[in-house]
Amino acid sequence: MNLLPPSLQTLISELSKLPSIGEKSAMRLANFLISNPDTATGIAKGLTESLLKVGLCRECFFFSEEEKCRFCTSSRSRSTLCVVEKPMDVLAIERSGEFSGLYHVLHGVWSPIKGTDAAGLKLAELKHRVQEDEISEIIVATSATVEGDATALYIGRLLKDLEVSISRLAQGVPKGGELEYLDSVTLSRAFQGRNVL
Amino acid sequence: MNLLPPSLQTLISELSKLPSIGEKSAMRLANFLISNPDTATGIAKGLTESLLKVGLCRECFFFSEEEKCRFCTSSRSRSTLCVVEKPMDVLAIERSGEFSGLYHVLHGVWSPIKGTDAAGLKLAELKHRVQEDEISEIIVATSATVEGDATALYIGRLLKDLEVSISRLAQGVPKGGELEYLDSVTLSRAFQGRNVL
Repeated sequence: MNLLPPSLQTLISELSKLPSIGEKSAMRLANFLISNPDTATGIAKGLTESLLKVGLCRECFFFSEEEKCRFCTSSRSRSTLCVVEKPMDVLAIERSGEFSGLYHVLHGVWSPIKGTDAAGLKLAELKHRVQEDEISEIIVATSATVEGDATALYIGRLLKDLEVSISRLAQGVPKGGELEYLDSVTLSRAFQGRNVL
Repeated sequence: MNLLPPSLQTLISELSKLPSIGEKSAMRLANFLISNPDTATGIAKGLTESLLKVGLCRECFFFSEEEKCRFCTSSRSRSTLCVVEKPMDVLAIERSGEFSGLYHVLHGVWSPIKGTDAAGLKLAELKHRVQEDEISEIIVATSATVEGDATALYIGRLLKDLEVSISRLAQGVPKGGELEYLDSVTLSRAFQGRNVL
C-alpha cells in the first residue's frame, strides 16, 4: 500500500533523480517543500524560467540567456582559451582571478571506459575556433582524473597540427596539503612537476 | 560581476534554501537540472501539482489529497492514536509494522529554547480528538531529543484529566548498537528502562 498521496509520491521520485539525493533525502526534501510553499513555488518558477531562458553561448558554450555569453561579448583578451569540462568550472577559475581570456566548455569528458563518446563533447567546435579566430594559446583545465587526463591528451592530438601553444594546469600538492596525508599519485605528480626555487 | 545568467542565479538562490543544501551544492544541482531538462520539468511539475493537491487530513493532519487521509478512512483500529512530530515519521512507523491504529501529526515540536510556541502544534486538535472520539490509548512517538522530551511531557499534562492511557516509545540501545560506542544518555536510559528476562 502506498501511504503518501500520489502527487507527493511523484514529486519524491522526481527529486530522487537528483545527484547524491537518495529516496530518504528526497522524502525529507518533499516534506520540507510541502511545508514551505514559498520556497517550493520559488524553485518551480526558477526551474521553468531557467529552462525557458538559459541556453548555451554559441561561441564558448557557457550558460547564457543571449546568443553570446558575457565573456564572449566582453573586452577580455581573445587570444587565450581556457578549456573546461563543465560550465561551473568557469566560476571556480574566475574566483581564482588567474585567467583573463575566454573559455571553451566541453560539456563532459572523454571516458572510453564509461563508453562516453568524444563526439558528444564540443571538440569540433574547439578546433573550429582555433582555426578561425586569432587564438595563440590553449590552457586545458580538465580535472586531474583519468577522464580529465584522457580528454587533455585527446585535445593535444586534435590541435597538434595547428599553430597554437597548448598547456595544462599544473598538478601537485594542494594549498594546505600535508605530505603525510597525500595520495601517492598526487605526490609523484608533484615530484615530476617540481619547480626551481 | 555576476557571471551566471540571472534566471540561473535565481534558481540557485532558491535551491540553496533547501535544508542541507549550501551554495556549492545548489550550483551543482542547478547545473545538473539545466543539463537534464526532463528531470527539471518533472520536478517543476511535481512541485506545482503537490502544492495544488496535497493538503492535510482534517482529522490527523497527515498529508492527503482528500479531506481525510487513507488512514482515517481505513478500517484500522480507531481506539489508539500514535502522536508524531512530522508526516514522514508515519512512514517510518508503518515500515516497522508495529502499529495498527490511527495517527496524529503535531507538525513540529515544542522547543521553549528555540522559541517555538506550543500553539503552533496540533495540540488543541489532539485534545479535541481524545475528548470527542472513543480513544483509549495515546502512544507518544516524538523523537528522543530534548524537544521531543519536552513535547511528550507537555502532551502528558495536556491530557492528564482525560480518561486515556498515555505511553511513550521506549528508549534504549538501538538494534546493532555496540555498548562500547553508545553515548552515556542512551545507556542510562537503557538501564532505567531495563526489562525482566
